[in-house]
Amino acid sequence: MTACEIIKNKRDGKELSTEQIKFFVDGYTRGEIPDYQASALCMAIYFSNMSERETLDLTLAMRDSGMVLSREDNDIRVDKHSTGGVGDKTTLVVAPVVASLGVKVAKMSGRGLGHTGGTLDKLESIEGMNVDLSIEKFNSIVEKVGFAIASQTQSLAPADKKLYALRDVTATVDSIPLIASSIMSKKLATCDDCIALDVKVGSGAFMKDEQSAIALARAMVDIGKGAGVKTVALITDMDEPLGYAVGNSLEVIEAIQTLKGKGEKRFVDLCLRLSAHLLNLATGKNENECIRLCAEQIKSGKALDNLAQTVEMQGGNSEWIYDETKFPMAKYSQKFIAKESGYIYYTDAEKYGLCALSLGAGRTVKDEKIDYLAGIIIHKKKGDFVYKGELIATLYSSNKEKFNSALRLIDQATEIKNEKPNERNIVFAIVE
Amino acid sequence: MTACEIIKNKRDGKELSTEQIKFFVDGYTRGEIPDYQASALCMAIYFSNMSERETLDLTLAMRDSGMVLSREDNDIRVDKHSTGGVGDKTTLVVAPVVASLGVKVAKMSGRGLGHTGGTLDKLESIEGMNVDLSIEKFNSIVEKVGFAIASQTQSLAPADKKLYALRDVTATVDSIPLIASSIMSKKLATCDDCIALDVKVGSGAFMKDEQSAIALARAMVDIGKGAGVKTVALITDMDEPLGYAVGNSLEVIEAIQTLKGKGEKRFVDLCLRLSAHLLNLATGKNENECIRLCAEQIKSGKALDNLAQTVEMQGGNSEWIYDETKFPMAKYSQKFIAKESGYIYYTDAEKYGLCALSLGAGRTVKDEKIDYLAGIIIHKKKGDFVYKGELIATLYSSNKEKFNSALRLIDQATEIKNEKPNERNIVFAIVE
Repeated sequence: MTACEIIKNKRDGKELSTEQIKFFVDGYTRGEIPDYQASALCMAIYFSNMSERETLDLTLAMRDSGMVLSREDNDIRVDKHSTGGVGDKTTLVVAPVVASLGVKVAKMSGRGLGHTGGTLDKLESIEGMNVDLSIEKFNSIVEKVGFAIASQTQSLAPADKKLYALRDVTATVDSIPLIASSIMSKKLATCDDCIALDVKVGSGAFMKDEQSAIALARAMVDIGKGAGVKTVALITDMDEPLGYAVGNSLEVIEAIQTLKGKGEKRFVDLCLRLSAHLLNLATGKNENECIRLCAEQIKSGKALDNLAQTVEMQGGNSEWIYDETKFPMAKYSQKFIAKESGYIYYTDAEKYGLCALSLGAGRTVKDEKIDYLAGIIIHKKKGDFVYKGELIATLYSSNKEKFNSALRLIDQATEIKNEKPNERNIVFAIVE
Repeated sequence: MTACEIIKNKRDGKELSTEQIKFFVDGYTRGEIPDYQASALCMAIYFSNMSERETLDLTLAMRDSGMVLSREDNDIRVDKHSTGGVGDKTTLVVAPVVASLGVKVAKMSGRGLGHTGGTLDKLESIEGMNVDLSIEKFNSIVEKVGFAIASQTQSLAPADKKLYALRDVTATVDSIPLIASSIMSKKLATCDDCIALDVKVGSGAFMKDEQSAIALARAMVDIGKGAGVKTVALITDMDEPLGYAVGNSLEVIEAIQTLKGKGEKRFVDLCLRLSAHLLNLATGKNENECIRLCAEQIKSGKALDNLAQTVEMQGGNSEWIYDETKFPMAKYSQKFIAKESGYIYYTDAEKYGLCALSLGAGRTVKDEKIDYLAGIIIHKKKGDFVYKGELIATLYSSNKEKFNSALRLIDQATEIKNEKPNERNIVFAIVE
């Protein structure tokens, strides 16, 4: 067995054996198979695709290339993963809701690049919050309060880390088996019970059309099930920003307000659906019952208490959770005003994201510093009527020089028409 | 313009611009574009193919990555290239025939791997023969006697050298635009007037079927014409070994005997057809006239004289050309005897090649030492009748331990039947 033969087999459309996939991934992880063979294989996979079995084998080989989380308890643990979108603070609501119902949420996240930081960055906008936890500390918080969130250790799926960096510079990112195995190898390394996937579709998402999103969801759900993990995927709308806040501390505030029962309708809907699916996977209760239970956790304030406990356990100041006015606000703000009257007909999620990025809320290169306070508060969402001169959104930044280009972007992102747009569901489809 | 964008364009089936191709080839040659991006691009080309224009641009960019032969004379120069086969000593006949008619043959060859050595290695079996010539020396021999042959300088098409080594280990060899541009970039760097290509097809050739051979020939002829060089390709049979000798010094002896009018019929036919096409390209004379002229050069001994002059000019002992008994013979020989009576129905060129290789006549790894005296003399060719116990072939080697495995190979390669096989033409098609 040689790396070149494996590449040739895949190039010729043959199914690779479990042994061939493991040989390649292990050799690549150890540096015995060079980047130039791995990139050729990725391109061959791009064209020749992979079967469900091959994709599972690739995922498991990448999972096993590094640390697989071990623990001593027998509790059911759930995880939730989003393929990423603009204003996506869903985890900050879903995890406390589910954890407050006694289902453990052990979440490890990466940082990566994006319009805003990831969930880790968002949480770090809370005073004292620490996401760099040892495995022992991480496990003990999960056991005590039901929810912990930590940054992925370097030793998690190193094969995926190496391969992802390579795919990024060789035009081999857009391949369903490669995307699915990349996401799932990391999830499976830290969660072995239930996973709910939020596969976003639309202008602000990686997947631009529903068909591709469903194909990706199908691949990931099949991997999860193949690995013995209960898995479900929701295909959800990312054509407009999620909720009314985009930016790190602004999104944490929105999540807190949602946990206080003051959430934006579609965002609350998404959070309850995701929470209910996790609860359903973990307990077997039917979906309507699960939705009722989850909504109740918000109403009773128990989910908010759970978030406060997690923050407290991870060194954060939990007073901020109960009183979100404690969050500092950005030094500068800028109003975005309606130039005409009419309905907000379209708010382009991708351009809103780029606007937040231009204000300093995200990273364009690895390890870039984030302006936690930068971002956008949307006052008028898609479908709302706005009068000429009325406030559509407020931009925030610690650097006022950033407003000019940000205003141009948000202006391009916003379409006003006399006609009211059709309402779209937040959840398009469920793949299970 | 980034390397990744170029890979993505090709992956998506778009036509790359001249600038994009030049950017990639130049960057790769300078080491600014890494191997892992080049292998991804090659795999994308494998799947998405290249247009005639792109293939020409790739060839020219690779040609221009290194030295392009310059000269001061205005003579028409021709070159001949074979895609390689078993027993292929054609250049040693064609070049002297054409050169003796006043058409200059300036030939640079690589060494590479193969069942036997390349033309360079074959010639080096002549005492004193030197193929490591300076450009000045090379040009002066071409001018004086009409034919010189030298090993390719390191500076010839370095982009191709680098890319070929990479393709070899990334399963991206079998791509028509990549094969065609690789061959033609080196040819065009040393010849700018007329090129005749001998594209071999069959068991002993790189191209196993006529359709692929014609596609490769078409791509190469289009490149040649696109670069302003008169180009023709002959599709020729390589299902059985060419002539009766396989092995370095044995093939030189066969070439000499052919130049003395004692050549094997099909081999003579191929040499005359190739010589005539080169003469036709260079002079415009019609093909029948060209064949007559070429045959006359053999009959008159002028072609043999020409080879002797070239050998002499390159330090070789030209007495060997006039008296081939001066060539040393291998220390050991082994008879291959017919086990039954009948017609030689099939002689598998590839297995004959492997047999010669196993006797020591070729290289399996770069820079391996060759046994110049090793090889096979075929006494009974395909279509000949043989009696049980009669000699089919004689194997030669400087190491008698090699005979066992060689005999097994030649036995597998030889099929005897009661029925006489159909005769096949040596030239299947002409692409111009």
